[in-house]
Amino acid sequence: MIKLCIDCFGGDNSPGANVAGALLALREIPDLELVLTGDEELIKKELEGRDYDRGRLSIIHAPEVISCDEVPTVAIKQKKESSLMKAIELVREDESVHGIVTIGSTGALVAAATLRVGRIPGVKRPAFCPILPTMKGGIVGVCDSGANVDVSVRMLCQFAIMGSLYLNCAYGMEAPRAALLNIGVEETKGDELRKSAYPVFRGLDGVNFAGNMEARELLSGDYDLVVCDGFSGNVLVKSTEGACLEMLKKLKRDIYSRTINKVGAFLMKKMFDEEKRFMDYRNYGGSVLLGLKKIVVKGHGSSNDVAVEKCIEQAYRMQTADLTERTSREIESFNASHEDLPN
Amino acid sequence: MIKLCIDCFGGDNSPGANVAGALLALREIPDLELVLTGDEELIKKELEGRDYDRGRLSIIHAPEVISCDEVPTVAIKQKKESSLMKAIELVREDESVHGIVTIGSTGALVAAATLRVGRIPGVKRPAFCPILPTMKGGIVGVCDSGANVDVSVRMLCQFAIMGSLYLNCAYGMEAPRAALLNIGVEETKGDELRKSAYPVFRGLDGVNFAGNMEARELLSGDYDLVVCDGFSGNVLVKSTEGACLEMLKKLKRDIYSRTINKVGAFLMKKMFDEEKRFMDYRNYGGSVLLGLKKIVVKGHGSSNDVAVEKCIEQAYRMQTADLTERTSREIESFNASHEDLPN
Repeated sequence: MIKLCIDCFGGDNSPGANVAGALLALREIPDLELVLTGDEELIKKELEGRDYDRGRLSIIHAPEVISCDEVPTVAIKQKKESSLMKAIELVREDESVHGIVTIGSTGALVAAATLRVGRIPGVKRPAFCPILPTMKGGIVGVCDSGANVDVSVRMLCQFAIMGSLYLNCAYGMEAPRAALLNIGVEETKGDELRKSAYPVFRGLDGVNFAGNMEARELLSGDYDLVVCDGFSGNVLVKSTEGACLEMLKKLKRDIYSRTINKVGAFLMKKMFDEEKRFMDYRNYGGSVLLGLKKIVVKGHGSSNDVAVEKCIEQAYRMQTADLTERTSREIESFNASHEDLPN
Repeated sequence: MIKLCIDCFGGDNSPGANVAGALLALREIPDLELVLTGDEELIKKELEGRDYDRGRLSIIHAPEVISCDEVPTVAIKQKKESSLMKAIELVREDESVHGIVTIGSTGALVAAATLRVGRIPGVKRPAFCPILPTMKGGIVGVCDSGANVDVSVRMLCQFAIMGSLYLNCAYGMEAPRAALLNIGVEETKGDELRKSAYPVFRGLDGVNFAGNMEARELLSGDYDLVVCDGFSGNVLVKSTEGACLEMLKKLKRDIYSRTINKVGAFLMKKMFDEEKRFMDYRNYGGSVLLGLKKIVVKGHGSSNDVAVEKCIEQAYRMQTADLTERTSREIESFNASHEDLPN
């Protein structure tokens, strides 16, 4: 039995989407047990009249909610009774609970999970890894995308190892092609960090190193994992997201501005809806926080029920494939063979 | 009279586009004098039968060409007789020549210009500043976008000052809104570099500081200048460029894959051509290398004659507005008032 805790508040469609998503997952996965955190009355209202296996679902009351506008470090200290903090504490205290799924504040999650769930021994820093769709129909992960802005070669190596294991466990990828984000493909390119990292990456066990990658190749489908510091990873993901959305808006405006195109308007609408769906991160599962003792999945704030279900399935797959155990073993072996590497 | 040197080789359409662009510029601007560098015979062939003011155009023979595939640092040492190096040496030696325009190798240009043209006194490092179109129809500059991967707060301040002056001189912007690229808008966000830079930026003379900007806002039109280290600047520009192009390709594929849309195909083609033109960097002038003693403009490698002309006009405007002199004064004043800032 896999047991997960679902934070039922903090998203745009909470708690409706969270509760409905939980029930969808329970129906799909027979050996799944869920604990929902949040205002008990509101959660019960969402459950009313629904058909589900009561033996596999429980509620922990949490009257407070941490919103995305709050300062994470302050919120996690002040709102001990929030749905997020109750979930975090449960995961921390209860050995039988394997992980947490939330669609609330990213900042609060990263801060709270890092502080309270704790790192796998030997992991320098947990890393945030979102998934983007590529133009070839596949996906690409970016690790780290914002949890760590000042990093070392050792940390980059660990991001590569953890990200590769994650893609293997959650998406069944054998030997994901891992690239180092850089400003040129040659080994000698980049800043001191990248130049020092390259030769170490080349000999990294458990990482299928595919060389340096320039930012413009992110969506090409030629790479499965992009390894970077959290600052440039954040720039990479957000500028890609921003450019795609702005481009789509502009195209839509340009097309609809022509009267001659009124005939094709319906067709165009359908296509634009499809493109939006293609670009919608909700359809690719959540981002994950790697390197912690328990599974942590963060869905998009605007997740609907299906998106929440996908995040739960993702957490389930990660746990079933024993991601945490495998990460622990590989990081230990990496550290043992790279004692000389500065921290 | 403004005198510029045009490197006539190294682009996809060289020397035809370079020579034709030079003639267009001569026709447009009466007080412009041009020196073309490159294979004299080939250049003369391009000039044959053309009508132009011979008193304002001269040629310096340079039999070699540096291609974009060559290692810049090696090429600039070995190919002293190349059109680029001849142009660089002319700008260096001849006081009456105000700047250089090239559409050849970016790497070779940055290396050669930095080494041979020399920095304005007080400028820590020259910075590369390309221009991107925004979705509101304006433009946004990114400084630095790749010339300096390891930077200090002092360097970021200088990038902001030089970039602001450039946008004022070349595009007539009064008080361009300059943002610091960061992973969040709050003052406390980011790595050590950004956190230290923020308070200094707030009191920066000559810079209209608009706060931190997240990468997804680049094309929004809310900012005129984005200040960053060359690593994240490179990631920002290239991922934006990559995402837009991949998006456009995908849309085109999706549209054309539907038989029902055959009627609209012509209309769509026209629109896609327009979008491509909109995104085509050639239509916004070249990138510039700021902080050097002379004007340096780098046009897109695939520039045609009109694009080359635009680069020449851009260099002309920069010189007419006295960019180098003004940069020198503002940097001197910045350095004097920020002696305590680490280098």
